[in-house]
Formats: sequence, structure tokens, C-alpha cells
Amino acid sequence: MDFARPSIAILGAGAVGGYYGARMVQAGYEVHFLLRSDYEAVARDGFAVQSRDGDFHLSPGQLHIYKDAKDLPQVDLVIIALKATANHLLPNLIPPLLKADTAILTLQNGLGNEAELAGWFGGQRVMGGLAFVCINRTGPGKIHHLEHGLVRIGEFSGPPTDRTYAVAGIFKKSTVPCEVLESLEFGRWTKLVWNIPFNGLGAAMGLSTDALVNHPAGRKLVTELMEEVIQIAVSQGVMLPSGMIEEQIVKTQSMGAYRSSMQVDREEGRELELEAIFGRPLEVARRAGVKTGALEKLYAMLAVVNAALVSKVRFGVIDRI
Amino acid sequence: MDFARPSIAILGAGAVGGYYGARMVQAGYEVHFLLRSDYEAVARDGFAVQSRDGDFHLSPGQLHIYKDAKDLPQVDLVIIALKATANHLLPNLIPPLLKADTAILTLQNGLGNEAELAGWFGGQRVMGGLAFVCINRTGPGKIHHLEHGLVRIGEFSGPPTDRTYAVAGIFKKSTVPCEVLESLEFGRWTKLVWNIPFNGLGAAMGLSTDALVNHPAGRKLVTELMEEVIQIAVSQGVMLPSGMIEEQIVKTQSMGAYRSSMQVDREEGRELELEAIFGRPLEVARRAGVKTGALEKLYAMLAVVNAALVSKVRFGVIDRI
Repeated sequence: MDFARPSIAILGAGAVGGYYGARMVQAGYEVHFLLRSDYEAVARDGFAVQSRDGDFHLSPGQLHIYKDAKDLPQVDLVIIALKATANHLLPNLIPPLLKADTAILTLQNGLGNEAELAGWFGGQRVMGGLAFVCINRTGPGKIHHLEHGLVRIGEFSGPPTDRTYAVAGIFKKSTVPCEVLESLEFGRWTKLVWNIPFNGLGAAMGLSTDALVNHPAGRKLVTELMEEVIQIAVSQGVMLPSGMIEEQIVKTQSMGAYRSSMQVDREEGRELELEAIFGRPLEVARRAGVKTGALEKLYAMLAVVNAALVSKVRFGVIDRI
Repeated sequence: MDFARPSIAILGAGAVGGYYGARMVQAGYEVHFLLRSDYEAVARDGFAVQSRDGDFHLSPGQLHIYKDAKDLPQVDLVIIALKATANHLLPNLIPPLLKADTAILTLQNGLGNEAELAGWFGGQRVMGGLAFVCINRTGPGKIHHLEHGLVRIGEFSGPPTDRTYAVAGIFKKSTVPCEVLESLEFGRWTKLVWNIPFNGLGAAMGLSTDALVNHPAGRKLVTELMEEVIQIAVSQGVMLPSGMIEEQIVKTQSMGAYRSSMQVDREEGRELELEAIFGRPLEVARRAGVKTGALEKLYAMLAVVNAALVSKVRFGVIDRI
């Protein structure tokens, strides 16, 4: 990896990939975007970023955008910002981008994305990142950055290295706060403690976070799930403090009416990241013999919702009984 | 009660009250409707019924409609077709309508509505009815009858009497199939076996019945709830056969994409009939020591949804995390 002038490829330019990528372009980095449905709109209008930290616009002339992965150059850093449901595409998308020492950083939610990448491309290349940010893609190439923005990154196969700090430096120079994780696993499970109840109940019930944390019955549902996730993490040697439940609930109460990304996915008819966020942690729990009654029920509900989304069952028929 | 020429008051002219009431007017009965928000529209345009069994229209001149219960005459039969969430109004609405032998028939969903009426007006007056029908109120005074229509009625305080058959006769002469129940309790619990999973999961998850019964995980969620309801009923001496679960699921699979009335209530921002359909059966279970893990979780979810509806939390803020 060229630490002095790294070249970067971003796969997926939805909210996360679009925002971080645009910040990197703004900071002067060479960034190559692989787009799908938004390609035409971005080729015509560029990226328009409305941000709490200052609005800006990138014209098409300032951007390198591609429809086909075969057209991208080899780069020093590949950032994956696709939904985990598109991971089956990666074995075809990524190889053309790889030099001998190219790093691959996944910013996806859930468990097991790094292991999957390591299986395909070797564990040494793989890094994981957690995005703590509220961003909304309001249209093709139109990004609204509402709050937060912190990225935590770590190495898949060991403690941080020079490379980890170099990648963190790219984010920081691009005005994105970035912390290096001593243990990516610890970070992943910490984030799952939040993602599982709020993405899960949010999508299964169509409720924003405030409805869940401002009602005692909602806090109980959230707490049960968080307790189970902590128990699964502990079974893997990841010692999450049980005090984090109270802390996360209080933090969430201060967030107002957030719709989690999975709630938004449901409402916009997109397939849910069911396996990465729910199926894999449940599989870990099963193997470790951890009891997960609440998580299993939530998974069942989300499986039903997801099947309806995938089969495009219409929800609009108005009957009563 | 005047069996020869009964006069009837209908409280609430939403889908259920509007449809059955209009059928009774069409059959020549003297029917007095108490309306609230729909009064002006019905005074101007009457009732328009689009029905699988033949469309018809009732002009304002054919109708007796009222905004204020004090203006209604005393009648032989009062039919309650309000949501159970409006029951606190009944002690004021009903007394002006009562002769010495006026019967009160509630067509509401859930448990405990008859007992509540008996407490206020004496058990001898009270009858209960279960409507197995798919009707949609498409606008004020506009009713779309899609399917089914059967009403099952019974006495609150004993076996059927001449009165029960007389009231059944009113429905039948109005083209509405009507059966007399030997045990209203049996009928109520039978209907709860359907209402609890499909109204409950439908409202908590925003899913129509087909999404639930056409997925194995959905059928498991439905089956667990039905098993618990059957156990509660059995604890009350109401011996529901466990074979009814399979039967109800198969019947529901044949219904297509139904939105239960509670799902519709949620989507239209109305308060849910939480206590009548869920809270009271749970209370019965608690007193009888029946285990109801699935029902308790569903109740918790619906309590959160209902609180959000009542407090009019906006669901529309678009954020991600």
C-alpha cells in the first residue's frame, strides 16, 4: 500500500460509500467509485453532500466513476460499502482491483463479512470498519449527513499495524473522525449490541428508535436482546460490560426519532441484511450453547418480513376480518 | 323486545355497523344510526354499499341518523359496533335507548366486552356476537363488503333463548348468515385463536395474513400463539380442539393478502384494541397460571406500537445508523 499517495476504490455509493468517498475526494485523494443504479445521475450531476459539517458539491469532472469493475484501475485500498446481501458479487468485483498488497476494508454491518473476504482474498488483506453515523441517501448522488460520523477500524487477523493507522489517517484527513480498534471482534460485538435490537425491532415492527426506548415495554424488549448478544459475545471471549446496556439505551434516547438502516431498507423494499446481522450471531450462539429465545423470535419475524420483501408480496390489499 | 317489529339502534357506523345496519334498512327494519365523524357525509349522500352479494345505495331519506345519543328513540335492540377503545363512552350513550327489555348486542372483538356491559346494564340484557366478515370502509358512508359475512351470536348469561333466535332472525332476513351459539364463551375463544396471532402480528409487524402463513417461520409464530390461546381457553373450561390450529392456518392460506382490522387500525393511526384482544386474555392466563411467553412478547410489542400511535410519534424521520 502506498501510504503517501494511496489510491482508493469504493464499491457502492449509497449513503455510507457516497459520503465517505466524497469526503476523500474533497481531501484530494484519488478515489474510484463503482456505481450501479446511480451511475447516470452521478455522471450528469456529481455528488451533492448536505452535511452538518458543511455542504459541498463534487462535479462529474472531479470524479472517477465506473459502471463495470473491470474498468477500475488497481488500487491501494478497496472500501466495501455495499449491502452485505450483495456479497456474492465480490469474488467477481474485487480481483481486478488488487495489487499484491492492496488492503480491503469492509464498512458493512454484522458478523462474518471479514471472514468471508478472508476466505476469498486472504486474511492479510482484510480490515473491518464500523461506521457510527447517520447519513441518508435522499436521491442518486444526493447525500444528507445528519449526525455523528465516527469510523472505528481494525485488522481482521491481528492487532493494528502501520497500515491500520495509515487508513485511519485517510479518514482523518478527510474530516472523518477515525479510531483504531485493538480488537475488531470487540468492536463488532459492541456494535451488534445496538444493531440487533434497533435494526431488528425497527425493521420487524416498523418503529423508529424513540418509540422503542421511550416505552418501558420497548426498553424491556431491547434489553432482553442486548443481554443475549452480550452473552453470545462473552461465549466467544469478548467481555462486554453489562453496564453498556443502560449506556446504549440512554444514548439512543438522546438520538430522537431515528430510523435504523434496516427499517429504511424494509420501507424502501430492499432485502434485509438478515444473515450478517442476525443469522450469523445466532449460529455462533447455537454452537456455543447460549440461550437466545428473544433473538430467535426476532430472527423468525425478520425472516417473514424479508421473504415478503424478496417475493414482493403486496402489502396494499385492504381487507378486514 | 318486540319480535314482530323490532326497532334497532346501531352505535358506530364504520365497516361493521355500516354494513349490517344498511342490510337491515334494506330489509325494511327501523334502524337508528348513531354516527360521529361520518355524520355530515351520510346526511348528504347516504350509504353506498358495494358488496359481493349485490351493490345497493340508501339515500339520506331512507335513513334515521343522529349525532347525539340523546336524540335517539328507545329501541328493542342496541347493536354496538364501536371500537372497544371507545367503550368508556357507553355508560353515557346507551341509557337513553333502553326500554325495560331492550337487548344489547356487542359485535366487538376481544374478551370482556359483554362483562363490562353486564356490569353497567345488567347481564340479562347482554348478548355477544362474532362477525366473520371482510368489510372495508372506503370513505364516510362508503362500505365495501369483500367476503364472508357470517355472524355468530349468543347470550352472555346462559344458553340461547327465544330472543337469541329472534335477533338471529333479524340478521337472516337482512341477507346476513347468522348462527346461534350454545356457548358465547366457546365462540369468543375460538375467534381469539385467530384474532390474537393475525391481528397481533399483523399490527405489530405490519404484515398481511399471507406473509405470515406462507412462510414456515411465520406459521411457527402463529402456531405458538394459537397454542397459548387454546391453553388459556382450556384453563377456563373451554375445550378447544388442538386440530383447529391446522384448520385455521389452512383457511387463512386460502384468504389471500388480508390486512386484519388491527393492522388497518395501525396504518390509519387509530388506537389499537389492545386490552380487549390481548390484555384481558393475558390477565385470564396469569390468574390461571398458564404460561404465555409468546403472547406476553406480542403484547409488549403492541403496547409499544400503541403508545406510538396514541402519542402520535412521527414515523417519518429518515435517518440511518
